[in-house]
Amino acid sequence: MKNYIEVDEWRIVESGFDPTLNRVSESLFSIGNGKMGQRANFEETYSGASLQGSYVGGVFCSDKTRVGWWKIGYPATLDKVVNSTNWIGIRLLVDDVELDLAMGEVLEFERVLHMKEGYLERSFQVKLAGDRVIAVRAVRFCSIVDDEIGAIRYVVKPLNFEGRFRIVSYLDGDIRNEDSNYDLKFWDPVTDAAKEDGIYLQMRTVKTGFDLGVYAHTRILKGCDEVQVAPRITRATKWIGQEFELIVREGEEAVIEKTVAVLSSLNYHRDALQAAGLTKLRAAVDKGFARLKAEQADAWAEKWRYSDVRIEGDAKAQQGIRFNIFQLFQTYTGTDPRLNIGPKGFTGEKYAGATFWDTEAYCVPFYLATAPQEVSRNLLIYRHRQLGKAIENAAMLGFTGGAALYPMVTMDGTESHNEWEITFEEIHRNGAIALAIRNYIRYTGDDAYLAEYGAEVLVAIARFWAQRVNWSEAKQRYVIMGVTGPNEYENNVDNNWYTNTIAAWCLNYAKWALQQVREHHEARYLEIVNAIAFDPEEVFRWDEIATKMYYPKDDRLGVFLQQDGYLDKEQRSVADLNVSERPLNQHWSWDRILRSCFIKQADVLQGFYSFEDRYEDATLRRNFDFYEPRTVHESSLSPCIHSILAAKLKEEQRAYEFYLRTARLDLDDYNNDTEDGLHITSMAGTWMSIVEGFGGMRVKDGRLSFDPFVPSSWLSFSFSIRFRGTRLTCKISKGKMEVINHSTTPIRFYVKGEMCQAEAHATSMLDLF
Amino acid sequence: MKNYIEVDEWRIVESGFDPTLNRVSESLFSIGNGKMGQRANFEETYSGASLQGSYVGGVFCSDKTRVGWWKIGYPATLDKVVNSTNWIGIRLLVDDVELDLAMGEVLEFERVLHMKEGYLERSFQVKLAGDRVIAVRAVRFCSIVDDEIGAIRYVVKPLNFEGRFRIVSYLDGDIRNEDSNYDLKFWDPVTDAAKEDGIYLQMRTVKTGFDLGVYAHTRILKGCDEVQVAPRITRATKWIGQEFELIVREGEEAVIEKTVAVLSSLNYHRDALQAAGLTKLRAAVDKGFARLKAEQADAWAEKWRYSDVRIEGDAKAQQGIRFNIFQLFQTYTGTDPRLNIGPKGFTGEKYAGATFWDTEAYCVPFYLATAPQEVSRNLLIYRHRQLGKAIENAAMLGFTGGAALYPMVTMDGTESHNEWEITFEEIHRNGAIALAIRNYIRYTGDDAYLAEYGAEVLVAIARFWAQRVNWSEAKQRYVIMGVTGPNEYENNVDNNWYTNTIAAWCLNYAKWALQQVREHHEARYLEIVNAIAFDPEEVFRWDEIATKMYYPKDDRLGVFLQQDGYLDKEQRSVADLNVSERPLNQHWSWDRILRSCFIKQADVLQGFYSFEDRYEDATLRRNFDFYEPRTVHESSLSPCIHSILAAKLKEEQRAYEFYLRTARLDLDDYNNDTEDGLHITSMAGTWMSIVEGFGGMRVKDGRLSFDPFVPSSWLSFSFSIRFRGTRLTCKISKGKMEVINHSTTPIRFYVKGEMCQAEAHATSMLDLF
Repeated sequence: MKNYIEVDEWRIVESGFDPTLNRVSESLFSIGNGKMGQRANFEETYSGASLQGSYVGGVFCSDKTRVGWWKIGYPATLDKVVNSTNWIGIRLLVDDVELDLAMGEVLEFERVLHMKEGYLERSFQVKLAGDRVIAVRAVRFCSIVDDEIGAIRYVVKPLNFEGRFRIVSYLDGDIRNEDSNYDLKFWDPVTDAAKEDGIYLQMRTVKTGFDLGVYAHTRILKGCDEVQVAPRITRATKWIGQEFELIVREGEEAVIEKTVAVLSSLNYHRDALQAAGLTKLRAAVDKGFARLKAEQADAWAEKWRYSDVRIEGDAKAQQGIRFNIFQLFQTYTGTDPRLNIGPKGFTGEKYAGATFWDTEAYCVPFYLATAPQEVSRNLLIYRHRQLGKAIENAAMLGFTGGAALYPMVTMDGTESHNEWEITFEEIHRNGAIALAIRNYIRYTGDDAYLAEYGAEVLVAIARFWAQRVNWSEAKQRYVIMGVTGPNEYENNVDNNWYTNTIAAWCLNYAKWALQQVREHHEARYLEIVNAIAFDPEEVFRWDEIATKMYYPKDDRLGVFLQQDGYLDKEQRSVADLNVSERPLNQHWSWDRILRSCFIKQADVLQGFYSFEDRYEDATLRRNFDFYEPRTVHESSLSPCIHSILAAKLKEEQRAYEFYLRTARLDLDDYNNDTEDGLHITSMAGTWMSIVEGFGGMRVKDGRLSFDPFVPSSWLSFSFSIRFRGTRLTCKISKGKMEVINHSTTPIRFYVKGEMCQAEAHATSMLDLF
Repeated sequence: MKNYIEVDEWRIVESGFDPTLNRVSESLFSIGNGKMGQRANFEETYSGASLQGSYVGGVFCSDKTRVGWWKIGYPATLDKVVNSTNWIGIRLLVDDVELDLAMGEVLEFERVLHMKEGYLERSFQVKLAGDRVIAVRAVRFCSIVDDEIGAIRYVVKPLNFEGRFRIVSYLDGDIRNEDSNYDLKFWDPVTDAAKEDGIYLQMRTVKTGFDLGVYAHTRILKGCDEVQVAPRITRATKWIGQEFELIVREGEEAVIEKTVAVLSSLNYHRDALQAAGLTKLRAAVDKGFARLKAEQADAWAEKWRYSDVRIEGDAKAQQGIRFNIFQLFQTYTGTDPRLNIGPKGFTGEKYAGATFWDTEAYCVPFYLATAPQEVSRNLLIYRHRQLGKAIENAAMLGFTGGAALYPMVTMDGTESHNEWEITFEEIHRNGAIALAIRNYIRYTGDDAYLAEYGAEVLVAIARFWAQRVNWSEAKQRYVIMGVTGPNEYENNVDNNWYTNTIAAWCLNYAKWALQQVREHHEARYLEIVNAIAFDPEEVFRWDEIATKMYYPKDDRLGVFLQQDGYLDKEQRSVADLNVSERPLNQHWSWDRILRSCFIKQADVLQGFYSFEDRYEDATLRRNFDFYEPRTVHESSLSPCIHSILAAKLKEEQRAYEFYLRTARLDLDDYNNDTEDGLHITSMAGTWMSIVEGFGGMRVKDGRLSFDPFVPSSWLSFSFSIRFRGTRLTCKISKGKMEVINHSTTPIRFYVKGEMCQAEAHATSMLDLF
């Protein structure tokens, strides 16, 4: 755990330069716009510890796998986000001495992430050889107005000398992935160019064949006046640069403005990339840095209007939640259904930049409430687009008849994970995808989604479950053997209660979805039936299975059992563990972890979260009291579920404590792993803790419902959300809830079960009893 | 399945050259002497498909592992047999054209493995460019009289021309392992030399630091006369050669005799290797090829006297069993307790050339009956030597107090396998090691072994089980969670019946062993108690656990359950499987295999084999009838157990059918994998099928016991064995058993439960009723 980030409600601030923290800061100060993003690397050369990282959504490489013992059903290669052309690079040579913060004496240093306006700023003073002191101020952002544009303003001032400055503005395509399994490089050069407008570099990924074209325009100004200096073009392998040389006087500011257009063959024919890039670049250059930056601030203001969470009385919490919201919106904007949300977003390479069930289980609820409906809809369509591959994936494992098993980890629908106990067995992910459809429809009321996309996905998932179960003669019930539940500290167990529960639910929900489509979209229904060779008899089997599903439980304890045999384990409590053993996954052998009763992340309790309406509070209470003490929360996705359930059980203090575990996970580098990238998807979980936990927000009968409280250490908190065409801000303080309806129509909702109404453009004050 | 080996009772014969079979033949015709061995590669250059393989027992490398997702408890590197200096190499250039069977036209070709005399012979005629025909006859063996000596006699005759022959006799140390995970090479050069006596090459393994020195003497003869031709020395990277040039007339024979000494730093200081090698080499050269070969034949005759199995009426079976016995004795001679038996012996690299539980479960019974007592004793001492590392291994997984977990795969005691479900979970191997001690003592009566070595191993194993179990409050029994049984088509199951059974047995047996030592070797007992900090109270816990162990069973079916929940699986029969799905491991995803009821190899039935005295025949019958139809025998170690149990159940035809599955496994290349090496350890299983199955041989109350029958397609069979200082040959024909006592003392034994006696140097004829 670190504690070096200054507390500020709207900014992330690092003061002073500590090279040992640089990789952490590179993650924290990352910028992105949903289409591309990058770590907060320095523009100038830096020879210290750094993970140079620029990533473009949907552009991935295919890495060789490392598998000790191959199993049939494993994918041959692993797709992963590819670290791509470094477009921020600006070398600075002062009288032939390279500016490098690892070499010079850093006198002042400040790095600031401006979350309100969406840009990164860095300023420093450094003393070079001969006591020459230079001040630099660099501002950079990835535009969310035009998400193919990046801009840098890099201002250099010699404070106590006049010098000859050589400035090399370059594009470096010779980039490797830090996590490449065999140190392979994934980029081949295609072409480069140096024109009046700037320099261009086009690279192509090996095997996967994505082209990435980057066009960069650089101009040099002194004060506000452009310096007319003809650049010298230099080239190296997969590298092109423009070198400017100028004399800068003591106290004079030299300004380097670098504008780039980053285009990929996802959106353009590869032969058209260069021309399209030039068009984009020219438009951006014409606007100029100041206007680009002003537009950026406006666009971010609009995002914040619908998503901000305000916390009074706790500036650290305020900073934490804004940081999370900011990073989520930097990662995913929902404009392209081919993109998704990697657990590390654009801030690192871990987890391959790929899509996990995190998206459906944690991110969809966040985007549903804070972004236009299309955003979460596109997250759902992402899976619909990949249905064919999910069916192929299931077929590879031996399933037939259009059954789909969505991959555990994927870039484009192909499975990208090779651990049998996860790849083949952590199949509850299929349920998460169905559940996200339910959540989307429940929140938006967009029933038409089922006809358009949802039903096909739901049927394919139901077909999977219908084959994945088997009838147990011994139990006279349908069972699901050999699975890994959300608690990955158990592998290959039989009858994981959560998995059995979600499987049966999927079967029922698919049946319901088909009925909806048949009733309301008959033509489409027939089209679907035809397209997927659907036999209405299939539903009878779904019914039969769902009705006769086996659910492990213990009547004496009155709890559901995480899996068959769970009670045969030695029953211990996390409280009994020595602190030196935590986290278990860094101290215990896998053998010991598997055999212990300790739970990595909410499992049975995840089911209580997903299907809360089914269970009495007393049942939840018994299960919570049983499983919570056994849960080590060694996934950052776990505490939010416990927080929400504790809130439901009116355990306000505990709800708050669970929330605290991830509130500033990255800002304080709790797990000592922020250097590898931020925990983007778990950030959505923190938002859930506040809105669904403290705010008690649900959708019931098509209306919002709240059951809020304020954590005792806060004065108040508020959150802004969208709901079916309205925009609301809900502020909760002790004993009071204020609902501001920003919309032109009134809205009715429940508070603690009572129907309330907020008039258009009005604020309603409600007492919380 | 292939069928190209000619049937011959004492020889393995390949006639005609089929390059597509070459790798298979290289395995089949392998030679070895327990210390070193090699595949039947050609002496001359061969550019076709080949696995050049020379291996030296106990000399191993440390390979980088390939693991997708690391788990705590995994070893950092994997030890594996290292493919080492090629000492057979003889290049032949005829008028500057390289002799290479992949290039010339092969007119005649025969490869013969002489099992009776222990040598490999190859003769061929090949037509080179210009219609020049050459005849070659090459004889080669690894001496079992001096196991550091190899000898080659390579005779060349130009049939229709006179030519200039350049002969390059070389040592090539630039060898790589075919199975190197990252194409690493594992040998560094140390030194080389070219002296009057020959050439020398010394190499050292990277990381593990074994030195291997090979000294080679080569002489050229025409007829019986040595040709005085001064060799030219040539060197390349890790390579040294002697080049001879001579004119050979049409019809004249040029003879190349190459004698080598292969010495390793296992047995000599590395600085002494060269001198020691020269001494060895000189002695061998002085003897000359003919005498070396004659001594080899004598030594093999002695081995056969105690181990031959004769089968009348089935020449293929006869060839098969002799091949198995021959290969087993080529692999292990029992002179060195640091050596063991890799599943592929010296015939390939698969399974890392390492030690598995195959040794204890399958090989020990074979060597007990066919080799001097020291041989199996040394196999046991091998594990005693590695006890310290087994304790370290257990400690790495979190076990304390001197508990030992022997590795699943090892060269020197360090675990060399990285699959959690095997490495951490297939722990029944610990039981196999204890069981081998029981079997050794039962067969030999060498109770003193317990005091000297056995008790320490047994206590450490018992300590492991005592920690590995846990008390189930739910079952009110001790349970063993998270294991993989012998049936590796189930992973991470709870309460594998076989594992629970052997665990409880180990606890009882360790207790018994300690009592034995205390009673008969009190001083040693106190020494042990002191050395291992043994607390006599430990035994109370062992008792408690063994008494209250949980054994899964189904009362309705009257069978033990392979594991908890086995009956929840869909119950199918192997007979229901489509032939196109077999073997399952090549056609089914791992997911499907794990969830199916199909059993890779004997599991519950392995327990019936190991502890047969505990169970009534009716119990065996029910379990056999239940499990046999579910067993796919996709391990070559499985059928022999079923064969022996079928024989016990008087199912003679089925016993024979199970025997057939491995009788000629490699000779007929049943599994299409003989090219990777022979299934050495399963060869012992075939022997067990004949002797323990058809012969019904057991040890009861310190005496041999037989319950024999002749398979209906055989006329008779006989086997020679040793037993406590006697040597017997038992011949079984229809209705009769003939026992020849070759010893100077009479011996009493049981036949079908009746006590019989065979007088010294006499033959007893017994009627089988």
